[in-house]
Amino acid sequence: MIIVMKNQATEKQIEEVIRWIESLGFTAHPSRGVECTLIGVIGDEREKEGLKQAQFLEGVEKMIPILKPYKLASRESHQGNTVISVGTVKIGGPDFVVMAGPCAVESEEQLLESAYIAKKGGAQILRGGAYKPRTSPYSFQGMEEEGLKLLDQVRTRVGLPTITEVINPADVDLVESYVDILQIGARNVQNFPLLKAVGHSRKPVLLKRGMMTTIEELLMSAEYILAAGNPNVMLCERGIRTFETATRNTLDISAVPVLKSLTHLPVIVDPSHAAGQWKYVIPLSRAAVAVGADGLLVEMHPKPEKAVSDGAQSLKPEKFYQMMDEIRVLSSAVRH
Amino acid sequence: MIIVMKNQATEKQIEEVIRWIESLGFTAHPSRGVECTLIGVIGDEREKEGLKQAQFLEGVEKMIPILKPYKLASRESHQGNTVISVGTVKIGGPDFVVMAGPCAVESEEQLLESAYIAKKGGAQILRGGAYKPRTSPYSFQGMEEEGLKLLDQVRTRVGLPTITEVINPADVDLVESYVDILQIGARNVQNFPLLKAVGHSRKPVLLKRGMMTTIEELLMSAEYILAAGNPNVMLCERGIRTFETATRNTLDISAVPVLKSLTHLPVIVDPSHAAGQWKYVIPLSRAAVAVGADGLLVEMHPKPEKAVSDGAQSLKPEKFYQMMDEIRVLSSAVRH
Amino acid sequence: MIIVMKNQATEKQIEEVIRWIESLGFTAHPSRGVECTLIGVIGDEREKEGLKQAQFLEGVEKMIPILKPYKLASRESHQGNTVISVGTVKIGGPDFVVMAGPCAVESEEQLLESAYIAKKGGAQILRGGAYKPRTSPYSFQGMEEEGLKLLDQVRTRVGLPTITEVINPADVDLVESYVDILQIGARNVQNFPLLKAVGHSRKPVLLKRGMMTTIEELLMSAEYILAAGNPNVMLCERGIRTFETATRNTLDISAVPVLKSLTHLPVIVDPSHAAGQWKYVIPLSRAAVAVGADGLLVEMHPKPEKAVSDGAQSLKPEKFYQMMDEIRVLSSAVRH
Amino acid sequence: MIIVMKNQATEKQIEEVIRWIESLGFTAHPSRGVECTLIGVIGDEREKEGLKQAQFLEGVEKMIPILKPYKLASRESHQGNTVISVGTVKIGGPDFVVMAGPCAVESEEQLLESAYIAKKGGAQILRGGAYKPRTSPYSFQGMEEEGLKLLDQVRTRVGLPTITEVINPADVDLVESYVDILQIGARNVQNFPLLKAVGHSRKPVLLKRGMMTTIEELLMSAEYILAAGNPNVMLCERGIRTFETATRNTLDISAVPVLKSLTHLPVIVDPSHAAGQWKYVIPLSRAAVAVGADGLLVEMHPKPEKAVSDGAQSLKPEKFYQMMDEIRVLSSAVRH
Repeated sequence: MIIVMKNQATEKQIEEVIRWIESLGFTAHPSRGVECTLIGVIGDEREKEGLKQAQFLEGVEKMIPILKPYKLASRESHQGNTVISVGTVKIGGPDFVVMAGPCAVESEEQLLESAYIAKKGGAQILRGGAYKPRTSPYSFQGMEEEGLKLLDQVRTRVGLPTITEVINPADVDLVESYVDILQIGARNVQNFPLLKAVGHSRKPVLLKRGMMTTIEELLMSAEYILAAGNPNVMLCERGIRTFETATRNTLDISAVPVLKSLTHLPVIVDPSHAAGQWKYVIPLSRAAVAVGADGLLVEMHPKPEKAVSDGAQSLKPEKFYQMMDEIRVLSSAVRH
Repeated sequence: MIIVMKNQATEKQIEEVIRWIESLGFTAHPSRGVECTLIGVIGDEREKEGLKQAQFLEGVEKMIPILKPYKLASRESHQGNTVISVGTVKIGGPDFVVMAGPCAVESEEQLLESAYIAKKGGAQILRGGAYKPRTSPYSFQGMEEEGLKLLDQVRTRVGLPTITEVINPADVDLVESYVDILQIGARNVQNFPLLKAVGHSRKPVLLKRGMMTTIEELLMSAEYILAAGNPNVMLCERGIRTFETATRNTLDISAVPVLKSLTHLPVIVDPSHAAGQWKYVIPLSRAAVAVGADGLLVEMHPKPEKAVSDGAQSLKPEKFYQMMDEIRVLSSAVRH
Repeated sequence: MIIVMKNQATEKQIEEVIRWIESLGFTAHPSRGVECTLIGVIGDEREKEGLKQAQFLEGVEKMIPILKPYKLASRESHQGNTVISVGTVKIGGPDFVVMAGPCAVESEEQLLESAYIAKKGGAQILRGGAYKPRTSPYSFQGMEEEGLKLLDQVRTRVGLPTITEVINPADVDLVESYVDILQIGARNVQNFPLLKAVGHSRKPVLLKRGMMTTIEELLMSAEYILAAGNPNVMLCERGIRTFETATRNTLDISAVPVLKSLTHLPVIVDPSHAAGQWKYVIPLSRAAVAVGADGLLVEMHPKPEKAVSDGAQSLKPEKFYQMMDEIRVLSSAVRH
Repeated sequence: MIIVMKNQATEKQIEEVIRWIESLGFTAHPSRGVECTLIGVIGDEREKEGLKQAQFLEGVEKMIPILKPYKLASRESHQGNTVISVGTVKIGGPDFVVMAGPCAVESEEQLLESAYIAKKGGAQILRGGAYKPRTSPYSFQGMEEEGLKLLDQVRTRVGLPTITEVINPADVDLVESYVDILQIGARNVQNFPLLKAVGHSRKPVLLKRGMMTTIEELLMSAEYILAAGNPNVMLCERGIRTFETATRNTLDISAVPVLKSLTHLPVIVDPSHAAGQWKYVIPLSRAAVAVGADGLLVEMHPKPEKAVSDGAQSLKPEKFYQMMDEIRVLSSAVRH
């Protein structure tokens, strides 16, 4: 932490700030400059929230934090990349992993058909929502436990591990008894009771970035899960909200290399929610492979025109197969 | 709903879209234009999600919704303004209502002192957080039930109704047994299980706009609470996230007149979280009165330099009194 | 400037950075911390762009600038507030100044009628555009020199000073020969040749903030004009672009107190372009007075339904008079 | 254009709107719905700005434009893709084109060295700025005409066509006499006098999207150039401004497929200004190839640590060669 003193701060004020820093157990390093004096504070600033109160001392202009506010999620805290095992699938390793399936679980038939398409196309994991966070209270809210049971049955029958979203801390135990990966949706990225609840689970967690969440805040939310004891966290970039309305959200493709440089956790891209229109999903999937993501979370539906939610952004089977083919070519060119 | 057909759509495609619309029980009104054909869909589009699937029909370019997606929250659904009673305080009526107090409940002494200052300054409601949603898992997370008990005691002793935030659906019953108004924070504006839970409560709810929530989405979130049976909802503008970093968030002051024209619900402004710095809180409070808000939610602390959270944006007692004086002058000039 | 060394930086790297700083004529103040070493650079960092190259030295993690990048625009560089005189009108002093008129000059009759309404309502300055920067090449581009001549005639006849926009450096001489204040529009806030050109003028300049311009960048653009020799600059907040579409732009009302604390230049608010709809202009004008702005730039038209541009956001005469009445009441309550 | 009438609009109001539409030479198609009446307006709405005034008629709630506001830039107006020839280089055709070089022309030696590196790496076009739009008036503003002369000399000597930015309409003739492609920078995307000036040139124009510019506005700016008579326009995505600060801007990678579906013009990606840090430039370049862009504009410098501007985002020669190698592999996998 650096404390910047005001232009007109007196020597007495500077000394009081130094005394105060030392009273908290830190060491102070003042640098008296031409226009202002800076005071470096030596010690782990994350451990003392009280340090923030320096801003109320006389003569202080502002404070500049130096250390990253997350620890467990940072690259420095972990040797190499975290690789998460889900059955025989490894996420964060050399293979590019595709999680595909419908936005919502709608029926046994629909889910089973989706699973066969996913498997045939080469996806490693089946997605499907049983609890749907919808903007409107009048929209379909998901099949809930019945949907979870279908996920469980189809998993066994088709042989694909599953991922589904959990939206209420009270449901975590139930959800993790039926599926392989717990998903935290964009709207819940700072739902701290929910983060703590999945942090106490032993199942892997896919944490989506919120529409409004900075990369640093996303890492802080991952830190909640890690700090609660669950080391198996993967991050998912799914588009942020900007002024542009040509796409549903703006896919922040740069977030992938930025996250790769800051954290050891796997990074997944969701092109479907970013684009909001199926026709942009294939080029964005190619970009995700090329930029260095570890995998994709993608919406596919046997009959998008019958989907109860997000049909517009779901790939038809033939487009899904085309995407998988293109990804395979790129993946072998990029990943070695 | 209007369906816009592609430039090159054939007559046969147009007829199939019309047949399809009619099969859903709607009436179709085609207008054949120079460059494209429009098909008006007559009927209440909110009742049939299936209508969205028109986008998958051959020859369809796009769909344009016409009706507002919320009903109970809309001005049209309610005569006059909703006025919410909290004891003898009326929110949404002729009086400008101030809810003031510390960010977090820290101790009996701190809360009691805050309540006396709030009352002396003329605030009508005491705020104080018992559950704190913090970006970092290493930050103070609130006194929880112990904090609720303090709110209850101080309310009785000082005679001010109270407001506090609830962050977990599982806590709603407990929280509403201790306080007068339930607050939904910005990060939970689309936490739908929580919205449903407070919708089943009988206590008034203050719903904060999220950092990246549109005005329409805010009204949809209010609709969740209203649709669950709780008519006592007030909305709170507290700043949105933009590219500007000179303030913590950007107070969207225009949201007040926009909301006033769209909904009958009271509109409150939180200048503290918008500004992030106490020195901008007083001018923004004046702007809130002048623009036509129904009240303020403002952070004040007996000793901001000792606050465990949000000290930087909390007013000292003397600044709080100054703000209340300025508000009184403006309020009598603006509200009649 | 502070240079933050990497966690693993060696003592040798630190010493080389120090040597390099000293070779540029600055003084280096290292603070060796637990996790990293900071090196304070003492001297005026604005004078040496070369300092930025420190980021390429071995072991350097990042650089943090401390000084504000503008000088002439900063509060520290000027005693008290800048007050700009336009005839007998003083902008930035105790009076709240209203500049009103049509978006575009359309005809002698329209401009004359506007001027009489502006004067009758109590506005001090007449606005009207002769050069119109329009998104579409097919939209009306302004009357150009003919419009300037009308502004000149009407000014003399009605006795109101005038403001108009200039969009091409080549036009500055012409425009300043006809009007009293030169306006730089939002789209030209970083049109540096234009800023230099008005900087060489002796007429006052109203500089609008761009839709995506930070407050600091706005001050840097003002610095261009000031540095070129023109001290009479006023700043104008007119809404920034955000994700919210209920209004044309989002009025950043907080920018007023932020600018007031950073600079001595007058601050004007344009509620018309911010709102994009006339019905929100009056409450936003009240907010502008209450928050402490020095004046308003507002669109008014004798017959908005006939306006060639921006009719939707222009006030009708009767609404303009109502606004002026409300402003007067508030202004006397707020400004003393 | 569709006119939406208010819920309570009377039959008489509806009829007046219809009469008014017909008086402008359009045909009106009313659809009387349950909650409101829609009136389709048949005719080319782009030709009559007067149509916008419908919003002032009694009973009108809002207007919804249907047609895209640009014509010449739209896919519909042009068969196939525009391919721009610069010497023997073809932009917009099967080859992926790389334009590389320093941010600013600094000296003959620096430019010559850059050109040799660009050529050796396989770039087809040399970039280099002679006029630099800088946020600060105290920063280096470019070598101006002297820089143009160096570009001309180096072009001849090394045999690479050149691109440089023009920032003042008055300079267009001079600049086009020295270089092969005129660049319009992000800050000038709505500098309409400048767009008209390059529209009168016969040299190809690279038009950068502004930080705040929607895709539709970018196409409208292209329309200015096309409408002035210059058909050789290419568009450049270079990052938009969002709340995220981990990168200098947020590269809107989705803009590439969106533009490809809306327009026939070539689409180039500038990863350097988007990222702001050289270490993210290579992955973003790979993403640009994979997503389907026609080329790259990339900053490279023989000695970034000595660059007078944008050194932080410039690739060193060895990193540039690595990028070119990776692009070649990807390009052959993606483009056929």
